[in-house]
Amino acid sequence: MPQVSQKGTQMPESPIRKLVPFAEIAKKKGHKVYHLNIGQPDIKTPEVALEAIKNNTVKILEYSHSAGFESYRTKLAASYQANGVNVDTADIIITTGGSEALMFALGSTMDAGDEIIIPEPFYANYNGFSVASGVTVVPVISTLEEGFALPPIADFEKLITPKTKAVLICNPGNPTGYLYTQEEIQQLADLVKKHDLFLIADEVYREFTYDGDKHYSVMNIPGIEQNAIMIDSVSKRYSMCGARIGCIVSKNKEVMATAMKFAQARLSPPTFAQIASEAALETPQSYFDEVITEYRGRRDILVSELTKIEGVKVATPKGAFYCIAKLPIDNADKFAQWLLESFDYNGETVMVAPAAGFYSTPNVGLTEIRIAYVLKQEDLIRSVAILKKAIEQYNNK
Amino acid sequence: MPQVSQKGTQMPESPIRKLVPFAEIAKKKGHKVYHLNIGQPDIKTPEVALEAIKNNTVKILEYSHSAGFESYRTKLAASYQANGVNVDTADIIITTGGSEALMFALGSTMDAGDEIIIPEPFYANYNGFSVASGVTVVPVISTLEEGFALPPIADFEKLITPKTKAVLICNPGNPTGYLYTQEEIQQLADLVKKHDLFLIADEVYREFTYDGDKHYSVMNIPGIEQNAIMIDSVSKRYSMCGARIGCIVSKNKEVMATAMKFAQARLSPPTFAQIASEAALETPQSYFDEVITEYRGRRDILVSELTKIEGVKVATPKGAFYCIAKLPIDNADKFAQWLLESFDYNGETVMVAPAAGFYSTPNVGLTEIRIAYVLKQEDLIRSVAILKKAIEQYNNK
Repeated sequence: MPQVSQKGTQMPESPIRKLVPFAEIAKKKGHKVYHLNIGQPDIKTPEVALEAIKNNTVKILEYSHSAGFESYRTKLAASYQANGVNVDTADIIITTGGSEALMFALGSTMDAGDEIIIPEPFYANYNGFSVASGVTVVPVISTLEEGFALPPIADFEKLITPKTKAVLICNPGNPTGYLYTQEEIQQLADLVKKHDLFLIADEVYREFTYDGDKHYSVMNIPGIEQNAIMIDSVSKRYSMCGARIGCIVSKNKEVMATAMKFAQARLSPPTFAQIASEAALETPQSYFDEVITEYRGRRDILVSELTKIEGVKVATPKGAFYCIAKLPIDNADKFAQWLLESFDYNGETVMVAPAAGFYSTPNVGLTEIRIAYVLKQEDLIRSVAILKKAIEQYNNK
Repeated sequence: MPQVSQKGTQMPESPIRKLVPFAEIAKKKGHKVYHLNIGQPDIKTPEVALEAIKNNTVKILEYSHSAGFESYRTKLAASYQANGVNVDTADIIITTGGSEALMFALGSTMDAGDEIIIPEPFYANYNGFSVASGVTVVPVISTLEEGFALPPIADFEKLITPKTKAVLICNPGNPTGYLYTQEEIQQLADLVKKHDLFLIADEVYREFTYDGDKHYSVMNIPGIEQNAIMIDSVSKRYSMCGARIGCIVSKNKEVMATAMKFAQARLSPPTFAQIASEAALETPQSYFDEVITEYRGRRDILVSELTKIEGVKVATPKGAFYCIAKLPIDNADKFAQWLLESFDYNGETVMVAPAAGFYSTPNVGLTEIRIAYVLKQEDLIRSVAILKKAIEQYNNK
């Protein structure tokens, strides 16, 4: 019997997936489960995007251009420009989700055995994309105590080897909710310029900032035009996760020509989803204002409720819709499983993502969880109340 | 300035892409260009699929399950069973096109430096997927003279090394149009069983057979359930190339569990396209009957017209909608470029794919072209008339 690949064996499973059977147990018991574990927003997709799909006039569902619709790329570039991000049509290739954009970025810049430095905790699928690309992840640790701010540049420099090809950041961050300051982005820019590295920035949560802070894109830093690669997606911006439309953006012509070869091999991004995404560019500002107001309210209530629980520490998120909380428990993996398998509070429980899966370094973040605040405020209040009861009960077992 | 990856440098460009600027020249001259170079059918997508999209009730465009809609997978399995192909729901993961299914198959079975044996000429993007996966393609040559039949098994065995992990076939074949006989599939089955290899079969053209021949799926060969991996797609079956929906199919549980990890990393296949693909399963048989009748007519007229040209040799395709023709010219690359750049026949010309790009062995197929018969019959007749004039004029330059 032929054996699967070592690469396949090394591919990590989602940190949430191992909890799925236990969520099934909770549901079989008739318990209501509040899902704080996933990044699937409950926000409605803009009408203008849904209408465009309903009114489409496709007769033959053809391949699109491998770089995506020209019309979409042009409007998208104009939209970036209107938001102060310096991007032209030729700098954009439309991809099948931000996921594919990351795969193209890794494939275009790194060979098997090359190293990429990523501040941790980080989006767990960066591990999967790296394994699939044969790339080694080198984590640099950021801490809850520091609010998950950028680690000192000296920490990055200690990790640079001849194999280091890129630094990857997520800004605002999943799972941390941290938004890098202009100064931090400039420090990273100086670093990659000095060491001739790529700076890959996953900016899919760029609109989600809550304290009047401005998001600084790597596309706007003078002098690193040849180093900077931006990853973007419509998934969170328009609550269109199922579209699977993103883009890879760079002013480095050689990077874009290389990414284009990967794009050609897979033929084209999905056509219907491009129709929806192009139309979504006409979403009125009021939609975003409402969404941001809603998420800000959720964040505020979540952080305020969490900090009322004795022993819980939270780094107040500045962006995205995730938050890492340190709990007064022995082990978040065990706790998350117990929540589903053995606990309920008046027939209800919560599902959370143990944060260890977001760290690459072993045995770090063992008492932390990631909470996605993608539920409405009353459900978040209820969820935290359940969590409070659960912590008490868990520690008195 | 940081440099792109070696992998990126090695990624092949599409054999057609280098002709695109010359096609632009022809169009600027006002010449009509008949596109014999691409596999984009002119057949209408089934109404039932298009209607499902127009009538969709999505309010929040959510991620789907990473393996695809459960309902779609179940109906798809039933559809395979109804067509005599032994596949259950659990054997299927829905992918973003057949392209992604191939990437998952390579990633799940092969590591960097491993070797895959592929009869050539083969679909050019197999090269791209292999480079992207770090896998080495080992070609085994099939010839126009033999109608592109399966090369002798001894030729395969000569190429097997400890690094060989799989044999990849396309059946019916792009670019050859060859349909493997049951006997040939059995020979391959015996080979992979004997040497403990995977047998990956790209069967996306399974419905397109023209002479009453039955298509034999690798899923139907007893004894190689642990070796066989089938790649499929809705692109050609329903003229839905732009949907980007395919699947990877295997009875090998370890392969499927591994492919699932790749599927989870990229979150989900596109939702709208899954809605269309699930609905497309209700396409009436009359649609396929019409399509096959149309393609059979096109094939017959194309082959009959081509063989009237002195010096042209054609392997009559038994399936798919491609045909390789050997032309009485010095070099098909030069000829294809000249057709666009310097030739016209009453203001018209043709664009063809030089076949050398479908061979992995250098300097093979240099006077061959691939013709996709995706144009209506009168346009095919006209195209071949233009080709005839062009060959005369080219050789009298």
